[in-house]
Amino acid sequence: MNQNLLSSNTHPIITLAVDMMGGDTGLTVTVPACEAFLNSHPHARLILVGDEKQIRAHVQAKNLINHPRIRMVHACEVVAMDDAVEVALRRKKDSSMRVAINQVKDGDAQAAISAGNTGALMAIARFVLKTIDDIDRPAIASIMPNLDNTGTTVLDLGANVDCTAEHLQQFALMGSALVSATQNISTPRVGLLNIGHEDIKGNEVVKQAAVLLKDTPINFIGNVEGDSIFMGGTDVIVCDGFVGNVLLKTAEGLTKMIRTRLMDELTQTWWRRAGAAAAMPALNAFRDKIDNRRYNGAALLGLRGVVFKSHGGADAYAFGFALQRAYDAVANDMLNKTTQMLLQMNNKV
Amino acid sequence: MNQNLLSSNTHPIITLAVDMMGGDTGLTVTVPACEAFLNSHPHARLILVGDEKQIRAHVQAKNLINHPRIRMVHACEVVAMDDAVEVALRRKKDSSMRVAINQVKDGDAQAAISAGNTGALMAIARFVLKTIDDIDRPAIASIMPNLDNTGTTVLDLGANVDCTAEHLQQFALMGSALVSATQNISTPRVGLLNIGHEDIKGNEVVKQAAVLLKDTPINFIGNVEGDSIFMGGTDVIVCDGFVGNVLLKTAEGLTKMIRTRLMDELTQTWWRRAGAAAAMPALNAFRDKIDNRRYNGAALLGLRGVVFKSHGGADAYAFGFALQRAYDAVANDMLNKTTQMLLQMNNKV
Repeated sequence: MNQNLLSSNTHPIITLAVDMMGGDTGLTVTVPACEAFLNSHPHARLILVGDEKQIRAHVQAKNLINHPRIRMVHACEVVAMDDAVEVALRRKKDSSMRVAINQVKDGDAQAAISAGNTGALMAIARFVLKTIDDIDRPAIASIMPNLDNTGTTVLDLGANVDCTAEHLQQFALMGSALVSATQNISTPRVGLLNIGHEDIKGNEVVKQAAVLLKDTPINFIGNVEGDSIFMGGTDVIVCDGFVGNVLLKTAEGLTKMIRTRLMDELTQTWWRRAGAAAAMPALNAFRDKIDNRRYNGAALLGLRGVVFKSHGGADAYAFGFALQRAYDAVANDMLNKTTQMLLQMNNKV
Repeated sequence: MNQNLLSSNTHPIITLAVDMMGGDTGLTVTVPACEAFLNSHPHARLILVGDEKQIRAHVQAKNLINHPRIRMVHACEVVAMDDAVEVALRRKKDSSMRVAINQVKDGDAQAAISAGNTGALMAIARFVLKTIDDIDRPAIASIMPNLDNTGTTVLDLGANVDCTAEHLQQFALMGSALVSATQNISTPRVGLLNIGHEDIKGNEVVKQAAVLLKDTPINFIGNVEGDSIFMGGTDVIVCDGFVGNVLLKTAEGLTKMIRTRLMDELTQTWWRRAGAAAAMPALNAFRDKIDNRRYNGAALLGLRGVVFKSHGGADAYAFGFALQRAYDAVANDMLNKTTQMLLQMNNKV
């Protein structure tokens, strides 16, 4: 390991480049999240990328201006949430998103994190960092909670809205390699998201993908349905980015509705409020466990560098989890392990 | 109204044809559900379709054998959950599913209900009953709960796994007409399920559908994301059957996981169990509100007859809701109202 990656007490120093301007709210979220992250991670360094004047104003307010583990890199443009991919890629070459990814390319940071426009992030990351061998399209992968408490890695969550069967096969390979590398599971169970378990079910792309996956050197367990994500029994679930994004947001909406319903019932009368007070420790633990924000931070897989996507609407607490996931990915050497495993599997395809 | 549809005290008699053999468990679910339904609906008649000997054995056990509002119709075949559509349609002409739908075609029942294989049910219903004018493909629609407490009607939930933009347009028309007719909303808000609100988002089919929907005589409010289903603000959400089915099952799995997590937290220690006892009235009310089974029963739209689909894994309580929805659809004259509204809208397209 390169000596300058080691701090004095042999903990590796991990440097993350943060797109400070991305997401629905930008600096009001990213600055407090970065501050909290530095406090809880003594071996982390952050490169804050964005409009330096604006960042300084926010950082100053937070007394972080002279923090020894912060560096600022100016970028004069911001990719808007509704910018077309072409605009973000061709016309905003000095966007905070792009400059953050450049830090990874140049070796100044080991990972980049952005809450900005997903399509633009994927396109820029692919353009700047390039894909690894035999991967046509990067994919977005995230862990979702399940009853096994191991989590289910689901991909693609929105990078690729029109997929072929071959793309789904590549996602399966990438997902399997990711879980192998980061969760220490030698042969992760990979399921293909479909509308029934039977071979006859599904659209043409999914049916073709099932045929390909049976001949792929992974532990393919066949078709799974949407409920399998949360019920457990599958380590990796593969779907196209349209379906993945819809299911992710459906899950978010449903969780919010259920939380609201629970609060409504618990607070409807003074008698119920008294009862709820007695159950508060359990209810608080429950609320924390189903908090979507704890699952924020999705990996962009298939690139020659580590990039994590935060939810655009993340608050500082949620953005902190995206920073944490990127940090863990670097600490676990996710990129090298996944790339090696993909190469091995691709040699067998 | 036809006189023989009226009982002596002017309540209309509604006759439902029930596929007794469909679903994962068949008679052990359908018989008790039918018994409970007859008890709570004095103006309902049921035609029990399936293997008469088996039905008699179950019904006898339930003391229903001589019920004045039950009639049995024998069908010697059963469509299996994994039968290909062609097998169900061409080779099982005496299946309980088909004979139940024949009752609607022949005017002996006003609606048919089955928990069997969705693809087969759709194909048989379409073959036997035919589609209404200008509708290429029937769709499956169901109400999902939302924070507005009005419910969001989502379609298609699994009948059509490969859709064109024109199909999505027809689903929008059908969903709008359904909600207009059954919920007394004059111009239901129709959203197109997508992975972002912006016009540039989505796959090619969805982008084309958005263009078509802007020129359709409905209240099209644009793209909506998965969370809108539960957050409210939209009366009808349109998607292809693959996406719809995945989101439906994702929601089911997540709800189950959340219920399990809540129970786990509430019962972890004796102290927490004591606290939970105090909050029990609120927790029971909450559990009922998020019970998936209460939303069982989806309408097959676009046909010249009323057919409802129950979840294949429904228990008797859930199957009862499917019977209830079919009963309500007939009582509200859903078919005629929806067909009339569709004709009016199609004349304007």
